[in-house]
Amino acid sequence: MQFGADIRIVDDAERPQCGDGQVKIEPAFVGICGTDLHEFLGGPNFSPTSPHPVTKEKIPITIGHEFSGTIKELGKGLESSGLKVGQKIAVQPTIYCGQCGACKNGAENACLNGGFVGLSGGGGGISDEVVMPAIACLPLPDNVDLDIGALVEPLAVAWHAVDASPIADIKEPKCIVFGGGPIGLAVVQVLLARGAKMVICVEVAKRRQEFAKDFGAHYVLDPTKQDVVSTALELCGGEEPPDIAFDCAGVPATIEQACKVVKSRGTVVNVAIWEKSIPFNPNWLTFREANLLAVIGYQKKDFQGVIEALRTGKITPAKMITGKIHMDKLVDDGYWALIKEKDKHVKILVDVRAGA
Amino acid sequence: MQFGADIRIVDDAERPQCGDGQVKIEPAFVGICGTDLHEFLGGPNFSPTSPHPVTKEKIPITIGHEFSGTIKELGKGLESSGLKVGQKIAVQPTIYCGQCGACKNGAENACLNGGFVGLSGGGGGISDEVVMPAIACLPLPDNVDLDIGALVEPLAVAWHAVDASPIADIKEPKCIVFGGGPIGLAVVQVLLARGAKMVICVEVAKRRQEFAKDFGAHYVLDPTKQDVVSTALELCGGEEPPDIAFDCAGVPATIEQACKVVKSRGTVVNVAIWEKSIPFNPNWLTFREANLLAVIGYQKKDFQGVIEALRTGKITPAKMITGKIHMDKLVDDGYWALIKEKDKHVKILVDVRAGA
Repeated sequence: MQFGADIRIVDDAERPQCGDGQVKIEPAFVGICGTDLHEFLGGPNFSPTSPHPVTKEKIPITIGHEFSGTIKELGKGLESSGLKVGQKIAVQPTIYCGQCGACKNGAENACLNGGFVGLSGGGGGISDEVVMPAIACLPLPDNVDLDIGALVEPLAVAWHAVDASPIADIKEPKCIVFGGGPIGLAVVQVLLARGAKMVICVEVAKRRQEFAKDFGAHYVLDPTKQDVVSTALELCGGEEPPDIAFDCAGVPATIEQACKVVKSRGTVVNVAIWEKSIPFNPNWLTFREANLLAVIGYQKKDFQGVIEALRTGKITPAKMITGKIHMDKLVDDGYWALIKEKDKHVKILVDVRAGA
Repeated sequence: MQFGADIRIVDDAERPQCGDGQVKIEPAFVGICGTDLHEFLGGPNFSPTSPHPVTKEKIPITIGHEFSGTIKELGKGLESSGLKVGQKIAVQPTIYCGQCGACKNGAENACLNGGFVGLSGGGGGISDEVVMPAIACLPLPDNVDLDIGALVEPLAVAWHAVDASPIADIKEPKCIVFGGGPIGLAVVQVLLARGAKMVICVEVAKRRQEFAKDFGAHYVLDPTKQDVVSTALELCGGEEPPDIAFDCAGVPATIEQACKVVKSRGTVVNVAIWEKSIPFNPNWLTFREANLLAVIGYQKKDFQGVIEALRTGKITPAKMITGKIHMDKLVDDGYWALIKEKDKHVKILVDVRAGA
């Protein structure tokens, strides 16, 4: 499965070799992500048009960065790694150089030369085989199935965002999440798993409002019908507004409301990726001494956090899967379904298992 | 001294009464601040046009919020306060309601009903007498003169901004300050007093570049001649950009550069107050997981920090005083001098002492 300006299923893709310290994975389920749609409709953005500094690949590349699979082969030196052939895993697709300031600073998710397997070369989930370093392979517990395993990646985005926020330092944290798309819904679930006392979700689309309720948001606000800032304050008891706001929608109105809705010295976490500059007034933060924190991607600890929450049942994300399709239906029933029926779906998984 | 659309010296202003727990102060030196100039040229902005929620006053009001003075009278109940008649003090002019979420949250500097003595009613420094609560009176050590005492307020703005940053958690912090006006220069001095290993100042005006050097900035960059982002990285050794950036200029170019110049997980502190929305791309923060922290005003601890640094000589700000004038020259030699010869001056003090 490769794409440039288009997406093609090919039979003659080169089979990757499993080197020392590497793991050959047979992908099982692969989620289609908003970033994939951006690449499909308006790309290449992430996809390298000249050799990527780490993978050395350029388009056409293999796609699929949200995936689970089973271990097919272990390279040399992994005898005591705890990994075993046949084991089911979630894959952390981060690519990083290990050399830049960000990597040396322990922020390899913000690597200046970074990327993602399935977007930047180095293989991808929508394939028969992919080879990854052992560190990218996170074993799934017995009670976590392979389809749920494909949700670990989007949940890890949310886990990372929540983990970067000061939630652990706040007693009975009250949080507000802007956007009820896949990442917004993942943030709602992670907040509840991380002990938020109140979670408010702000979403325009009716079906997504229902999803937010299904996933446990205590209140769902429709910004076309309610004043978000005053309603959130009221829901929080009238005195102290929300402690933390997460902008998972990434439109000018949501970041403005996120800045204006938080308490004094509150935190706004920007989880969205933006296409261009927007009108922004730093005074929105200043008059409450608030803090705008931007996050990107995830680290291994975020994958571990999500997997443990899945194991203990603190997160039960099965309802995020609104469709399962086979690889040969990828474009019509996957990409186009998500583009045309955006609000109906949270996550469509591609079942790439042999014989599926 | 009162003003509405204009500034007038009046002889018949009502003399304030010193109530229980209050202190009557005879102001000595009063700094003229950028905010005063904004009120003069384009106000009223801060100055209340309807009764202020705390002071109950509206314009015309008494001006002057950066001031030192001597204690003239102590109200009842201050016998064991440590304050004495004749003592020289710096005044913390913050007005706050004590009732709102911000005040209850310990952030009275971000009080929803807040203001400043000298801007929001409640008296002001440019007067014969002003009455303040005892908590607003910070004794000056023997070796800190009254003129230096009038610099405590702008230095406290800088102290608060630096204190809100993660400087204390960073080993050998490298900092960059955008803007070499009074607040930028105050931030440079406070950073050095607080142990910054490297301070870079970015400033367009030649005279202000010299001031920045005088106050100890290790490097001064001219953004019209140098690429700030790459030069700062180079000055920091080529691998790890500055840890913290302070935007004390508050123009679109400086906040963009501040966001782009910091290291991964670095902090941008917005010290400026903005007039309107600007083009801003949250991605500037996202791709390095940086953090935009906005600060406003100061708290008592910031005044205490500055005064202790003045006592020990860690901050020696005398050169910030570029002019001393008498009250009757306030408009021509004060306001207009600062407006017309902006780059020549850092701080003009008005000497309001009787017989001065």
